[in-house]
Amino acid sequence: MGAKTHPVPMALFRKNRQNLCTALKANSAVEKGSFVLLEGGKDVSFNDTDVNYLFRQESYFQYLFGVKEPDCFGALNVDSGESILFVPRLPEEYATWMGRLFTLEEFKSMYEVDRVLYVDELPAFFEKAAPKLILTLSGVNSDSGLRSKPASFDGIEKYVVNCDLLHPILAECRVIKTPEEIEVLHYVAMVSSDAHIKVMQFMRPGRTEYEGEAVFLHHAYAVGGCRHTSYTCICGSGTNSAILHYGHAAAPNDKAVRDGDMCLFDMGANYCGYAADITCSFPANGKFTEDQKFIYNAVLDARNAVLKEAREGVSWVDMHRLSCRVMLQRLKEGGMLQGDVDEMLAAGLAGTFQPHGLGHLIGLDVHDVGGYLPGQPERPTEPWLSKLRFARDLKAGMYVTVEPGCYFIDILMDKALADPNLNKFIVKDVFERFRTFGGVRIEDDVLITKTGNVNFASVPRTVEEIEKCMAERT
Amino acid sequence: MGAKTHPVPMALFRKNRQNLCTALKANSAVEKGSFVLLEGGKDVSFNDTDVNYLFRQESYFQYLFGVKEPDCFGALNVDSGESILFVPRLPEEYATWMGRLFTLEEFKSMYEVDRVLYVDELPAFFEKAAPKLILTLSGVNSDSGLRSKPASFDGIEKYVVNCDLLHPILAECRVIKTPEEIEVLHYVAMVSSDAHIKVMQFMRPGRTEYEGEAVFLHHAYAVGGCRHTSYTCICGSGTNSAILHYGHAAAPNDKAVRDGDMCLFDMGANYCGYAADITCSFPANGKFTEDQKFIYNAVLDARNAVLKEAREGVSWVDMHRLSCRVMLQRLKEGGMLQGDVDEMLAAGLAGTFQPHGLGHLIGLDVHDVGGYLPGQPERPTEPWLSKLRFARDLKAGMYVTVEPGCYFIDILMDKALADPNLNKFIVKDVFERFRTFGGVRIEDDVLITKTGNVNFASVPRTVEEIEKCMAERT
Repeated sequence: MGAKTHPVPMALFRKNRQNLCTALKANSAVEKGSFVLLEGGKDVSFNDTDVNYLFRQESYFQYLFGVKEPDCFGALNVDSGESILFVPRLPEEYATWMGRLFTLEEFKSMYEVDRVLYVDELPAFFEKAAPKLILTLSGVNSDSGLRSKPASFDGIEKYVVNCDLLHPILAECRVIKTPEEIEVLHYVAMVSSDAHIKVMQFMRPGRTEYEGEAVFLHHAYAVGGCRHTSYTCICGSGTNSAILHYGHAAAPNDKAVRDGDMCLFDMGANYCGYAADITCSFPANGKFTEDQKFIYNAVLDARNAVLKEAREGVSWVDMHRLSCRVMLQRLKEGGMLQGDVDEMLAAGLAGTFQPHGLGHLIGLDVHDVGGYLPGQPERPTEPWLSKLRFARDLKAGMYVTVEPGCYFIDILMDKALADPNLNKFIVKDVFERFRTFGGVRIEDDVLITKTGNVNFASVPRTVEEIEKCMAERT
Repeated sequence: MGAKTHPVPMALFRKNRQNLCTALKANSAVEKGSFVLLEGGKDVSFNDTDVNYLFRQESYFQYLFGVKEPDCFGALNVDSGESILFVPRLPEEYATWMGRLFTLEEFKSMYEVDRVLYVDELPAFFEKAAPKLILTLSGVNSDSGLRSKPASFDGIEKYVVNCDLLHPILAECRVIKTPEEIEVLHYVAMVSSDAHIKVMQFMRPGRTEYEGEAVFLHHAYAVGGCRHTSYTCICGSGTNSAILHYGHAAAPNDKAVRDGDMCLFDMGANYCGYAADITCSFPANGKFTEDQKFIYNAVLDARNAVLKEAREGVSWVDMHRLSCRVMLQRLKEGGMLQGDVDEMLAAGLAGTFQPHGLGHLIGLDVHDVGGYLPGQPERPTEPWLSKLRFARDLKAGMYVTVEPGCYFIDILMDKALADPNLNKFIVKDVFERFRTFGGVRIEDDVLITKTGNVNFASVPRTVEEIEKCMAERT
């Protein structure tokens, strides 16, 4: 996005293509003469109108081609690694509305692919290439349950096509980030961190939640060149901070922030398709009360315990358990819980306070692919673990969010109080004191290494750091 | 959106419903015992992921019900005017993620409808209501060519259903704005105007186009509470200002603005579904050159001529002709054209400079419905008129953009120079001097009245006003 923002080299996508070809060649089901064929994203219209949602490239296609235009296809010769981009053939008058039409040669040099053809040349291309096997992409996204639609073209039925084989292999490629991807992810995390700091210094009692969202969006775009966010901004204050996906169209960050509120702002910019996903929790008036400190530090200690332990070889489920154990221990020390922490864990009490997983893979999608691929650990069945978006052992190059939280949610509080397996651990009057507290989440974006991890979120995290940051208000 | 922004009374939507019932009752094909059934907008996912585009209500449903939630249905008893909203029955755990579930009673009082039921109660509702006729919505949007999908429910085949009758009647209702709608439209035009002024005072050589977009978006949201725009922001500078829909994903407002550039910024906020659509053209450095003044004033005179004449009873095609005539006259006076202006018009020379229509209806959609309804004048066939989005006589209560423009677009310049019917009017060396000029558009949002019109866009328009505004830079 111009001279002031991070330049993304096309080599990033070339390397992604090479990694895919290497992975495919290592698979015995992929015979010589195989081609990959992917369809890029399409423009999506707002209902039946002529207005489109602002286009952002489909993530698998972005991963391999980094192309800004809708309605493209891409092919890869698995043996040679040759890459072929297919662009739509547009009518001349398109130039009046959308700008000068690029030539195929210009597209080739812009996207550093080996060949560029028109989409309508797909049948002729494959006729000549005579592939032994065409690999298209179909598979279920484990976060949405939706299935990707495999690419097709007129006459594809003449070839041997496999639409299942590619998905787990390509998804697995996306799980381990390359150094070039890590640079982009670091950039978008830095931009998002700076934007969060601007928001913390802007918010105060009397301002409305969406004004904070606007500050974030402005900094991310004007300074960072990030035109998209990776998800709808969650800007909850007071009890809204206990609504995990607050900020949606029917709860659009429209409450005025009050003195004494906790704010939980979960916002992440998107740059060149790559996501950040960072949450800051802070007191609206800039100064923690004792109760706010209590909950905040319980979550912070859980987060610190995970950041200390997370590294290659460690199980993500164990990290979730660790964070829950630390949080419950702190809640016990603060007088809200009583009894044995191991028994609380076994009873599933952690799910009362944190009804979501410790975190998720992140990359081109905020909830990135690779969660429950074949051959990986399956989704745990215990209720308090079942929300985990993956259950794998960590590997160097994985990029994950670490986002423990502690929320006081009416229906979950009532359920726990009514459940003899849970209520025996609860000191009721202390617990009830927090009924309208809202919630705290601390969410970092963390690159796993062989020996530890690197946190790309760079925001004030301790009570002292937050109070100091907010004292420097704009 | 909180205390600082325009409150939209639910009476607005109630009145829209009443207007529709009145129009339906006046139609002989609508027998007694008829019901209207509409389906609201649905969440749209980003490809196969679990991220949704930020929801905005489908425009017809918004017009009648003003409901923020996706996945609803709405029914109207045409005889009695009774309104029934159907909301999805959500699982209890939804509250953890999306916030406390409203009761039916709460929805009823929130949206001021007569009854609220769950969507799964649709079959039972109609069983009991025993409608003689159910009117659903299907019809082609004349701007997109897309057809709206009629509402349905299990068992609808038991009833007499007409999906064609409603569309033109409901679209026609939307064409004439009520006083309540006009207030909202005025608000969003004022917010957008103020945001444009902020942008003009921010831009200067060295800043990038998208930085201006970011300023607009921030003002619209933080000050105006407008979370959406009505279309993708067009922020063209230099030759980009001649690309009519610049700013799309493949040309994302990413050029650095240079000294001597014209800027053409076409941006409009959206409030409660209602659109603004305003274009300001200004010199990047804040001071018009003689050439820039020449083109700008030719467009301004065309715009002034239309604002002087537009009123109930005037043909929109005539307004387009008038604006083109004035612009060609001014281009002739400035030495770019020669010969008889009527002959230029007849030859279609205006389309070389302005390949789009004078403007369009605007309301809940930026290109609002009602353009080419049955019984209205058909789309003109002459190339320079065929881009008009409607060809009707104006009526009081219509809300339209007036947006003459003058652009120097390579392919259109070359075509004109190669066409003996056109090139005889062109003074080639003057014309060629403007090849890299870009373009100028002046776009206002105008309410038609019986005796004239009211311009809701409130931005500096004369050369002097613009230079003065930009001299007060931030």
